[in-house]
Amino acid sequence: MPSAISLVTLLTDFGETDYFVPSMKGVLLGINPQIRIVDLSHRVPPHGIEQAAFFLKSCYEYYPDGTVHVVVVDPDVGSGRRALLVSTTRYFFLAPDNGVLSYIFKNEASVEVRAIENKQYRLDSAGATFDGRDLFAPSAAWLTKGQSPGSYGRLISDYVTLPDDHPKMNNQVLQGRIMYIDHFGNVITNITATEMETFRSVTKKEWTGLTVGEMTMKGVKGFYGEGATGLPELIINSNGHLEIFIKQGRAADRCGFQVGQKVELI
Amino acid sequence: MPSAISLVTLLTDFGETDYFVPSMKGVLLGINPQIRIVDLSHRVPPHGIEQAAFFLKSCYEYYPDGTVHVVVVDPDVGSGRRALLVSTTRYFFLAPDNGVLSYIFKNEASVEVRAIENKQYRLDSAGATFDGRDLFAPSAAWLTKGQSPGSYGRLISDYVTLPDDHPKMNNQVLQGRIMYIDHFGNVITNITATEMETFRSVTKKEWTGLTVGEMTMKGVKGFYGEGATGLPELIINSNGHLEIFIKQGRAADRCGFQVGQKVELI
Amino acid sequence: MPSAISLVTLLTDFGETDYFVPSMKGVLLGINPQIRIVDLSHRVPPHGIEQAAFFLKSCYEYYPDGTVHVVVVDPDVGSGRRALLVSTTRYFFLAPDNGVLSYIFKNEASVEVRAIENKQYRLDSAGATFDGRDLFAPSAAWLTKGQSPGSYGRLISDYVTLPDDHPKMNNQVLQGRIMYIDHFGNVITNITATEMETFRSVTKKEWTGLTVGEMTMKGVKGFYGEGATGLPELIINSNGHLEIFIKQGRAADRCGFQVGQKVELI
Repeated sequence: MPSAISLVTLLTDFGETDYFVPSMKGVLLGINPQIRIVDLSHRVPPHGIEQAAFFLKSCYEYYPDGTVHVVVVDPDVGSGRRALLVSTTRYFFLAPDNGVLSYIFKNEASVEVRAIENKQYRLDSAGATFDGRDLFAPSAAWLTKGQSPGSYGRLISDYVTLPDDHPKMNNQVLQGRIMYIDHFGNVITNITATEMETFRSVTKKEWTGLTVGEMTMKGVKGFYGEGATGLPELIINSNGHLEIFIKQGRAADRCGFQVGQKVELI
Repeated sequence: MPSAISLVTLLTDFGETDYFVPSMKGVLLGINPQIRIVDLSHRVPPHGIEQAAFFLKSCYEYYPDGTVHVVVVDPDVGSGRRALLVSTTRYFFLAPDNGVLSYIFKNEASVEVRAIENKQYRLDSAGATFDGRDLFAPSAAWLTKGQSPGSYGRLISDYVTLPDDHPKMNNQVLQGRIMYIDHFGNVITNITATEMETFRSVTKKEWTGLTVGEMTMKGVKGFYGEGATGLPELIINSNGHLEIFIKQGRAADRCGFQVGQKVELI
Repeated sequence: MPSAISLVTLLTDFGETDYFVPSMKGVLLGINPQIRIVDLSHRVPPHGIEQAAFFLKSCYEYYPDGTVHVVVVDPDVGSGRRALLVSTTRYFFLAPDNGVLSYIFKNEASVEVRAIENKQYRLDSAGATFDGRDLFAPSAAWLTKGQSPGSYGRLISDYVTLPDDHPKMNNQVLQGRIMYIDHFGNVITNITATEMETFRSVTKKEWTGLTVGEMTMKGVKGFYGEGATGLPELIINSNGHLEIFIKQGRAADRCGFQVGQKVELI
């Protein structure tokens, strides 16, 4: 476990029009004015636990050792749901216990998960609707001031994880789904290089195309500019996922693809 | 009055697509490269003085002593309107003299208000349309370099304040209004715990509901998850305001409530 | 050429909903945790090379000496297009070689342009679709750690520039175009004080109006508040460009003006 450095990232569904995020930043800086804050995003769809989990997975590993990652997508704030402090080999994570850290639990070799129970890390405030400001921000700030994870609460092992969402082999076909549509309209599936390897070893052949609804796309391009104009094409994207794109166009809109839709590698 | 620290917050209606905000940041850092900048928001509705005033009130107090808060919502830039430097016990505020600091004047025990008149704090630039970059940013930056408030201009007492906007008791009913709709579609009224106390002491009874148009909501929930599915409910929000919400839904859209609409506590 | 300071600005078309920008920030901070990052904007229209070039020109000069400006609007990522490191008297710029730095080449007295060829500055990653994270971010970070520009690659002189876009005199009329519409709906032309001077010296008279489609606007206001209510008016904006505005209104929407539309100074 590293020492916490004064670098805190924030990932929330609070949007950017309200006083929610700047309140959290004020609390962080009020406790430790040396903290540097990086916004991962505040545009997670409201209550989008799965989307936040995927977002975090896609970028947390680039940050330096000791970074404190704070995730607040928290539809059950104020209820009995627990708040977590997770320590891994390189990082700290603070988040509600609702599955938003699922990929961390899966990817990281060593995780220590604690329920934040120590009341001294909670701010006295009106209402019970804003743990981002009243619990997660002060807890993160005190961590950067050198408070030990052990002082936050006891270790637990029954934390919440999201159901497994891997593509599955079924009758010589790999069945996956569309998990994300990005800013450029690119369509990202949950099929990665690992699953394509599985396809090969199970079927003893190379895959020949990706089917979505009534469309089948074939062949993988090496970069976006290689795509034919106006046609949906396949690429392995920068996170290793199989992705559908249209060169300088919006594949999602053009083809009508949506998050959750089934895809088949054949 | 504190010494200014190198922490500057920005609250504007400049949006995030143009070069306005990054120009201000460049000027701040050009004068003092050690400044750390926190964006409160740049999404105040264009020319939305009231909204900016409410936004600032909702989060400024969390920041550390010596923070310099810069507010630029400035429809009358270039006209004769004055620019203000306000010093309080803990903070500095720079803003046009148009009422955007009204809550600061009301909330803070001690305020020193100056008109910024010293030309040495103004940048030489084309046009007279961008005091955010040409006056407020350099003025804030020089403050973090140790310039004294007294060097900016003379004390004034005839600064602009917005008209009082408190709910009022009328015939055993507390009449207020909807003042803000947040990112989640929650509907925030201008009724706070203080006014509910007034209601009780005037009427000698407990209030029984909040009426908006033809709807009446009853009972206050302790947290969002307690709400019945699909029904508008009441809660005291994280700033102490009475708020209408729908559990994991958008109350404003579902009920058609709008900013400015009247509400009655009965 | 200055020494690089630990201040890095980012200008991209990546939007703010995806993991692209926070991945770049993670890489920057992973290599040099002392870097301070300023977002110029991530809302450049997708693949909008011209818009990014204009945006950069509008604000880069306010930043302190040694700032590292990173621009990633990069439709041809993964193809053979080169990546550039440009050193000027005051700054460093990193960007794809697609014309996005055209105004820098034109404005700056001294530019050293290099192709980034040294593989040690590239991150090992999946795919070839994300040079923002895999090439530009690490290259910028190493620059702030003191690596010399010469270590990145050889000097080149055949870099790409956008076609000249100045207004032109034609038969006693100055023909320009609308180049930008800002957050307030203000309509910015490519006519600046310099071109108005040209108009005067060629025509031997003062200009009398600006014609767009069937509308002609006359006279230049000194500040926005001077405009007549509801009427489109002219102003020299904060970057020295001739601009059409409506007092507290949206000129672009009200008049139906669009980027690219022709304007004539008569």
